[in-house]
Amino acid sequence: MAKDQFVSQIADIETDFPQWYSDVVLKTQLVDYGPVKGTMVIRPYGYAVWENIQNEFNVRFRENGYSNAYFPLLIPMSFMTKEAEHVEGFAPEVAVVTHAGGEKLAEPLCIRPTSETIIGTMYGKWIESWRDLPLRMNQWANVMRWEKTTRPFLRTSEFLWQEGHSVFASEEEAEEETQKMLRVYEEFARTCLSMPVLTGKKTEKEKFAGAVATYGMEAMMHDGKSLQSGTSHYLGQNFSKAFDIKFTDKDGAQKYGYTMSFGVSTRLIGALIMTHGDERGLVMPPVVAPVQAVIVPIASKKEGVLEACRALKEKLAQAGVRVVLDDSDNSPGWKFNEWEMKGVPVRIELGPRDIEAGKFLCARRDTLEKCEFALDGAAKSVPALLHEIAVNMYEKAKKRMNERIVNADTLEELLDGVNKGNFVRAGWCGCRACEDKVKEFAQATARVMDGNNTAKTCVACGKKSERTVFFARAY
Amino acid sequence: MAKDQFVSQIADIETDFPQWYSDVVLKTQLVDYGPVKGTMVIRPYGYAVWENIQNEFNVRFRENGYSNAYFPLLIPMSFMTKEAEHVEGFAPEVAVVTHAGGEKLAEPLCIRPTSETIIGTMYGKWIESWRDLPLRMNQWANVMRWEKTTRPFLRTSEFLWQEGHSVFASEEEAEEETQKMLRVYEEFARTCLSMPVLTGKKTEKEKFAGAVATYGMEAMMHDGKSLQSGTSHYLGQNFSKAFDIKFTDKDGAQKYGYTMSFGVSTRLIGALIMTHGDERGLVMPPVVAPVQAVIVPIASKKEGVLEACRALKEKLAQAGVRVVLDDSDNSPGWKFNEWEMKGVPVRIELGPRDIEAGKFLCARRDTLEKCEFALDGAAKSVPALLHEIAVNMYEKAKKRMNERIVNADTLEELLDGVNKGNFVRAGWCGCRACEDKVKEFAQATARVMDGNNTAKTCVACGKKSERTVFFARAY
Repeated sequence: MAKDQFVSQIADIETDFPQWYSDVVLKTQLVDYGPVKGTMVIRPYGYAVWENIQNEFNVRFRENGYSNAYFPLLIPMSFMTKEAEHVEGFAPEVAVVTHAGGEKLAEPLCIRPTSETIIGTMYGKWIESWRDLPLRMNQWANVMRWEKTTRPFLRTSEFLWQEGHSVFASEEEAEEETQKMLRVYEEFARTCLSMPVLTGKKTEKEKFAGAVATYGMEAMMHDGKSLQSGTSHYLGQNFSKAFDIKFTDKDGAQKYGYTMSFGVSTRLIGALIMTHGDERGLVMPPVVAPVQAVIVPIASKKEGVLEACRALKEKLAQAGVRVVLDDSDNSPGWKFNEWEMKGVPVRIELGPRDIEAGKFLCARRDTLEKCEFALDGAAKSVPALLHEIAVNMYEKAKKRMNERIVNADTLEELLDGVNKGNFVRAGWCGCRACEDKVKEFAQATARVMDGNNTAKTCVACGKKSERTVFFARAY
Repeated sequence: MAKDQFVSQIADIETDFPQWYSDVVLKTQLVDYGPVKGTMVIRPYGYAVWENIQNEFNVRFRENGYSNAYFPLLIPMSFMTKEAEHVEGFAPEVAVVTHAGGEKLAEPLCIRPTSETIIGTMYGKWIESWRDLPLRMNQWANVMRWEKTTRPFLRTSEFLWQEGHSVFASEEEAEEETQKMLRVYEEFARTCLSMPVLTGKKTEKEKFAGAVATYGMEAMMHDGKSLQSGTSHYLGQNFSKAFDIKFTDKDGAQKYGYTMSFGVSTRLIGALIMTHGDERGLVMPPVVAPVQAVIVPIASKKEGVLEACRALKEKLAQAGVRVVLDDSDNSPGWKFNEWEMKGVPVRIELGPRDIEAGKFLCARRDTLEKCEFALDGAAKSVPALLHEIAVNMYEKAKKRMNERIVNADTLEELLDGVNKGNFVRAGWCGCRACEDKVKEFAQATARVMDGNNTAKTCVACGKKSERTVFFARAY
């Protein structure tokens, strides 16, 4: 009954995953469509996830020497053109301001699609000597990339993100930072989103416009497609030469710095939805869940029930749990469905008999199992349960991903692999033509390159494999 | 000597306040000019102030029932025109996107100057019944208003702000909320910025475009000019009728909601600089200061000094103090000047003799006085001192403001008052012509209206005073 009620609300996850996604993001009020095509409104339940993501990252960025700052939204078009590959990659997607204050502007301004050019300009002004290096800053901001096909969180014309930008005196330091921040992303995905990822270098075709090398993390969604969930770019001296980021070194010589940048966006919210969601709706990873535990009173009109619920809520809040008491007029069954769909990790049921026995019931959203705890130990047992859920969600998703990584020696095997919703590990000779051939034959792209070249031959041409690549269909 | 070194860096606050302001904001690295005219780059030291402001407000907004959300940057021009006064007020200032994704847009989009129109559109879609009310949301965002004359923090084409937007079933509730959020602003200014303000209703001329009534808080800057530091608008049904924000009431009838909005911006950073700054530079109010205490080691090469400084730093950080240990190679004198200019509330000096005596020296930035504390009581004495500084800064600024509020019965007295850097309390008949006359004669505007009409006659025409007004020159 409860389940039927629910099933009527959202599409079946196995047979119509795209519709399931739309249903879930709209009905749980994470997001809504904005009036301008391709834009989204992030509603409080969705924005709270983003705020939790921000808080977790701010701690990590600070530990790694980053300070937050804010750079302007509008970038003169002439800045974009200073780095040839960069403008080629981004110009087709930019939104352009041509008029302001009632007048036509002398130079059109673009809304930042990313901020290397404007931050590079400021860094060029600020950096003078080796003493100013390394320089590390992070920005939380909105960016805009005009896209033809859009979906809430996954691809929207405007999205929120963080972009870190650093300058180093040496190539080695900048490269090491590029790797280090990728590891920060990977650890964040595991710890905070309970989400396993594959990390590695991107191919030339897939790299960031203007980068020497891009490293990415890719996560496997419920349908077996890959979602690029974060990238870290080693930019070499491409941007320092274009934006005159020079410093006087210890030897007195003027040198160009080496730069890198890295970013994750509100796309991470899409990633966690499509990694963990099930037929009942969202399954929120505990660390970033807006509500970690909901208390549903049973027989709430009986004497003492609401008081006991309030006392438990207070105790859990004191213990740092984000807890809500649902004392609305709806029936417990309605509440169970509602909070299940919203993916709250722990549902607590508390009624007269529980109170008498000094216990409460917990229903886990990840396994749907129930367990009982003593009321007076709630401040310890609920946080411990949340941690257990986070670990279990990660292990479950990791097992699933590992089971769905297959090897292919031929294009046919690769096609069969991605058709079955797998990531396919295959050899690649390194040429663009073969990468394009895979795309054409299997509608799959090179997600990241494996650290080890375990394959013998290129899946497309049969020549010697230079790199082993994870191919997949991707969002 | 120390002072001379300093004086060479920033203009004299008494004789050239505008230059002092520019010098201080640039040299303390709060901000820099952006490449596009009228834009600013908020550097880490400035952005940290903004983050502290955000954190303090988030607590207050949550307590008042607000959830954070995020609405799109781009607003169709047609939305702006739905509320006649609103478009008249904002159209001349908007930046317009005409091209995106390589094509000309069918309808030009404006970059939000404020979000009543787009949030109103979504509220119209979301609200169905009286059960959905009151609805309260807040957004932290960048907005853009193309201005001719700009100054960092005070008036920039792009700025960061929060905007709260609420809908109520009744006029009374919406009006009460407008007043309540103004009181939240006032309490925040006092508690977090140590900044006294005048609050009250704005005249028709000065109100928000589209509002029924605007209430503002005005703060007195060092030069006696007023800075509008926050506003709260009662919007009546103007926007609910324009954006179809309707609900089914308990009686089954469809009714329009009553809306209100309120906002503060990065201008608050300009406000605190110009309220508290002195001839040595910034004086940061402790609650939002990025660094609350700096430890300067004395004779740092002597054995045990740096260790003792690190131990003290650790102890203070544990006690929740934002503390920095300046163990750079610069001389103590250089450090004293640098941190004084940056306005750090407490400077701690710790050398071999202090350590031996189990004490440390504190120099207060607000009074420049020094005091001594026992090392083992630092976790209590430093937070207590920070609180004392916050209170003292408020009292000092309040005394100053109160001394500089004068009464005027004639335009000449009013002119004399504002020439001397005062706020001038004067009677007003209520007509626009007299308000304009004051502006023309004394270059002063009506900042807010006094709650009590204590004046007898209009300062401009001599007729009966309908309202007593605080006039001032303003930023």
